[in-house]
Amino acid sequence: MSFRIGVLVSGEGSNLQALIDSVHGQDGIEIVCVGSNNPDARGLVRAETAGIATGVFPAGGYGSREERDAALADWLAERRVDLVVLAGFMEVLGPVFVRRFAGRIVNVHPSLLPAFPGVHAIDEALAHGVRLMGVTVHFVDERVDSGPIITQEAFDPVPYSRDIAAVEKRVHEIEHRLLPHVVRLIAAGRVRIDPDQPRHVIVEEDDGDH
Amino acid sequence: MSFRIGVLVSGEGSNLQALIDSVHGQDGIEIVCVGSNNPDARGLVRAETAGIATGVFPAGGYGSREERDAALADWLAERRVDLVVLAGFMEVLGPVFVRRFAGRIVNVHPSLLPAFPGVHAIDEALAHGVRLMGVTVHFVDERVDSGPIITQEAFDPVPYSRDIAAVEKRVHEIEHRLLPHVVRLIAAGRVRIDPDQPRHVIVEEDDGDH
Repeated sequence: MSFRIGVLVSGEGSNLQALIDSVHGQDGIEIVCVGSNNPDARGLVRAETAGIATGVFPAGGYGSREERDAALADWLAERRVDLVVLAGFMEVLGPVFVRRFAGRIVNVHPSLLPAFPGVHAIDEALAHGVRLMGVTVHFVDERVDSGPIITQEAFDPVPYSRDIAAVEKRVHEIEHRLLPHVVRLIAAGRVRIDPDQPRHVIVEEDDGDH
Repeated sequence: MSFRIGVLVSGEGSNLQALIDSVHGQDGIEIVCVGSNNPDARGLVRAETAGIATGVFPAGGYGSREERDAALADWLAERRVDLVVLAGFMEVLGPVFVRRFAGRIVNVHPSLLPAFPGVHAIDEALAHGVRLMGVTVHFVDERVDSGPIITQEAFDPVPYSRDIAAVEKRVHEIEHRLLPHVVRLIAAGRVRIDPDQPRHVIVEEDDGDH
């Protein structure tokens, strides 16, 4: 029995590439489709190169954002995805979409949430002058970057130069390791929300920390 | 020439004790007074035991909070403090106080700011379900726990038990090391605000990372 993943991207798709390289086709996990709001997303090319079905759902291509979300949700449901992975998907999906895949959408975000939600996280963290930055993988709920946290990893310290290219490189290195790791754990049934504490995610890591 | 510190506490004073044990009387650094809003603060006893002058400035003991802040500021100024350290001081000092000691007040806070400012940081972080927690030492500005960050240290992961006693113990261990370290660096002239970026603090660590 395979575990079927749909990935959504908006741009470069380097997190998608990490999933293709280290998760796709392994341990029964299959990326069955890659969707984008952006027809020019390089992530779509990466998917095609890997022989994965693609679809484009631009927000401006429908009567409303809700209609776009519904078309995207139908497309994912037709492909029977078990998990939707937002891998650099830069638009907010509406509540109808989120409820339809409740508890089955994960996002990777370049900050130690709840600090610096939104699309300018790295810039804002550098401007704020934080000494620690990091990456969060979390379930998606109906607000921006606010859902239950699955895992977080910090890197420190931020260089005093606040060199954004160096920081982005470090963020991407962590993302490309952390997101596939979490997807593998979810596919293995090792990630669950605490039924008594819906903000608390319990992860059975290989090292038995649970 | 000595570097003169005034410490403000509201309760147990374990961070004050860490400063007494590892900073006071060393390298020309002297804790010259310990003030509290709370006459029953155990930190006052710790100060007296170490032979340090104490003063009590309860918010309710003056006509207004501003008058209390002014009396406390006068008391610190009379003792010619070079630095005011908030070490578990649980009240907000008003803008007049902060401006009077501009750039010369530091605070230790039990979260990775800007996440979880305020007096319930640990409880809120555990309820939120974060996987990384930590400690921030920062300069104090006119808003709550918002001033320029000097240093931050994370510990991970939070145990899935969310055992608050275990988390507090870890927070205190870090605080008791980090706060004295920062005070020593400030006394040595190794901490400065970037003149071009008032949110950015530059620290000359011993390892030359600057």
